[in-house]
Amino acid sequence: MAASKIIKKWNILPTEFSKNSINPLRLLWETQQPKGNPKLKEIHLQPGDPTLYGNFPPHPIIAKAISDAALNDKFSYVECLGSRIARQAVADYSQHMGKITADDIILTTGCSMAVEVAIRSLANPDENVLVPRPSWNYSTWIHGSGILAKYYNLNPEKEWEIDLEDLQNKIDKKTKAIIVNSPGNPCGNVFSKNHILDIIEIAEKNCLPIISDEIYEFFTIPSVKFYSFATLSKTVPVLVCSGLTKRFLTPGIRLDWVIVNDRGDKLKEIRKGFQNIAGRNFYPNSTVQHALPKILSEVPQSFFDKNNQMIHNNAKIVYDRLKNVPGLNPIMSKGAIYMLIGIKLEKFPNINSSLEFMQRLANEQSVFTFPSEVFNFPGFLRFVLTSHDEALVEACERLSKFCEKYYKDKTYETL
Amino acid sequence: MAASKIIKKWNILPTEFSKNSINPLRLLWETQQPKGNPKLKEIHLQPGDPTLYGNFPPHPIIAKAISDAALNDKFSYVECLGSRIARQAVADYSQHMGKITADDIILTTGCSMAVEVAIRSLANPDENVLVPRPSWNYSTWIHGSGILAKYYNLNPEKEWEIDLEDLQNKIDKKTKAIIVNSPGNPCGNVFSKNHILDIIEIAEKNCLPIISDEIYEFFTIPSVKFYSFATLSKTVPVLVCSGLTKRFLTPGIRLDWVIVNDRGDKLKEIRKGFQNIAGRNFYPNSTVQHALPKILSEVPQSFFDKNNQMIHNNAKIVYDRLKNVPGLNPIMSKGAIYMLIGIKLEKFPNINSSLEFMQRLANEQSVFTFPSEVFNFPGFLRFVLTSHDEALVEACERLSKFCEKYYKDKTYETL
Repeated sequence: MAASKIIKKWNILPTEFSKNSINPLRLLWETQQPKGNPKLKEIHLQPGDPTLYGNFPPHPIIAKAISDAALNDKFSYVECLGSRIARQAVADYSQHMGKITADDIILTTGCSMAVEVAIRSLANPDENVLVPRPSWNYSTWIHGSGILAKYYNLNPEKEWEIDLEDLQNKIDKKTKAIIVNSPGNPCGNVFSKNHILDIIEIAEKNCLPIISDEIYEFFTIPSVKFYSFATLSKTVPVLVCSGLTKRFLTPGIRLDWVIVNDRGDKLKEIRKGFQNIAGRNFYPNSTVQHALPKILSEVPQSFFDKNNQMIHNNAKIVYDRLKNVPGLNPIMSKGAIYMLIGIKLEKFPNINSSLEFMQRLANEQSVFTFPSEVFNFPGFLRFVLTSHDEALVEACERLSKFCEKYYKDKTYETL
Repeated sequence: MAASKIIKKWNILPTEFSKNSINPLRLLWETQQPKGNPKLKEIHLQPGDPTLYGNFPPHPIIAKAISDAALNDKFSYVECLGSRIARQAVADYSQHMGKITADDIILTTGCSMAVEVAIRSLANPDENVLVPRPSWNYSTWIHGSGILAKYYNLNPEKEWEIDLEDLQNKIDKKTKAIIVNSPGNPCGNVFSKNHILDIIEIAEKNCLPIISDEIYEFFTIPSVKFYSFATLSKTVPVLVCSGLTKRFLTPGIRLDWVIVNDRGDKLKEIRKGFQNIAGRNFYPNSTVQHALPKILSEVPQSFFDKNNQMIHNNAKIVYDRLKNVPGLNPIMSKGAIYMLIGIKLEKFPNINSSLEFMQRLANEQSVFTFPSEVFNFPGFLRFVLTSHDEALVEACERLSKFCEKYYKDKTYETL
């Protein structure tokens, strides 16, 4: 009789966490890049990184504050929610939301992590959170954590407002929070006061807290006013995610935060949870925490006004040059640093998707954009508006040329 | 007939993730601190933060490198695994493990996160990883993620070596990795070459990868040599977690890493998982990434030698002063920055636990330590060895006095 000894074998498999933490933007960016046309200068309008183009430099106060803080830093451990001084600075900076104290703040390393902390404080695996479509890739953190994302639509016909009926219909017994994003990526949407009140009413009716991604807070074209969901909510708790990443034009700093805006002590239990989660030690670098009070109090309003004006100028350049191009449907941006250009795919019979449109545009015209497939809402190209104005003019001209070449109006063909 | 309309109520409950992410050290530190004796100067020997006492300052090259890097930083997004230049610097720094390239490195914000990434890349919820007892609080990341920790014992009688039989016995079908920590917290253990080979043999026999927390790499008393598990493993994959936090005496910087030491392509699938997990965007601040090559290449060996010598001197002070104190059993530290002092509780009939011992010692003698309850192995006090030598002398005197007061030898009593 043969020995029945079990021989063990090596078989190390990836975990669900690692399989499901898929970041579609990073994936496209790092693996599916088209090559471009070597005869034309490349125009890159892809990553939402305002530092790449050189015309939106961060205010010099920031580098100076960090440099000075480094020379005085003892590099000690910091309280896991973030240093009290840094959290107080965020509280002072965020008084537009209501009465905020240092105890309402959790500092995180990047705003992605702020969103993750907010989601994981409210939803268990197999429960769900509501996510706008199109949107930036919240699913990376949601699905990676075993939570479900249920998508509600934004309406391109209504300046990317939320389809409120769809939102209400997506809520079920396992829904734990509504994620909103205004000013928004990738749409450049900015919700009006009344629209926000309508959204809050739905949250109130369903007793659901709101996770408001406000990383683009105050980043609007001059004629449009920004409202925080926290400012307008009287009864619905709002976890606001914000930070230095976008408005201060410094995504590399990785100093962002969650602000706990409770309304009537509904988040009492959740606050203890935040303390525990923070014990996982994901807080940001001490030097930038020490520099934060100076950054938040000394970067002048004129810096933000100038950036908002430049974004507006660039948005107008793109919108005005593309609005009459047959086959395109640009939707004017009201904020953040993006605009979506609709592609009437039925007018381009040889092109099957906005992904293919993006790839062919890049390979023929060396204009690199993100297709809205990565935002879970096909049919659009995203332009990043922090590029140079001449580059945007040139990109629009090449896109027009590309459209002219492939556009076919079936109305005429069938005559 | 009354309408059967369901009235929804607010009921926001903490998630399992937030309930289970408990950090016992942080909890004790932030909530259960004894008050001390106001008549005596406080001596703090608690947090494993070498920056707190002033006699272990980081090398000035570090602050200068970060300060300079800040002035040249564009604060752009960085590749999600970490900038290639920074990862190459880590690879160059880690050649003692074998041939390491930038592709083997994942940069993380803090070494806690490195450990979390390693664990979550290998174990799913409901699977388990093996954890030393006593140890630093790995359970925070393990339990918070729904994974199980199974504890194997270290043996205080054998200089805190692993009880190999216990280790083998704890392995079951759902075990996915063995966590090891040498030089170790809280024991100050440093495993010999032969002991590491014995551990690797068990991993090999059971086809289990090793997660080696080597954040105290090279941090040993001069007579003891440090071996990386990666250096000694020929067939077992080793994920090494290390970084700037401890050896460079800069825990606030939050720049640490996982090094993927594969052996025979066993981690091929896991590497893709790492890429996904990194897409969650937890990478460290850009400025310190830019400063890293300078830090890793220019801090001189003499700096580390001096620190190791100082730790050795402090360890000898504590050991020599406590070894003959009735009721105590100090176990000489061989590395890291800690020593555990055994308390023969049967000799202190009025004190019920090392936690109570710690509290009463603090309240009577103003000597603040961590009891080993927080390391899941009651019966010891942890001394941090980065304090000033005079403070350690004074702490030992007060501890001796305290012991003298409460010590009762039952052998005599029962005569």
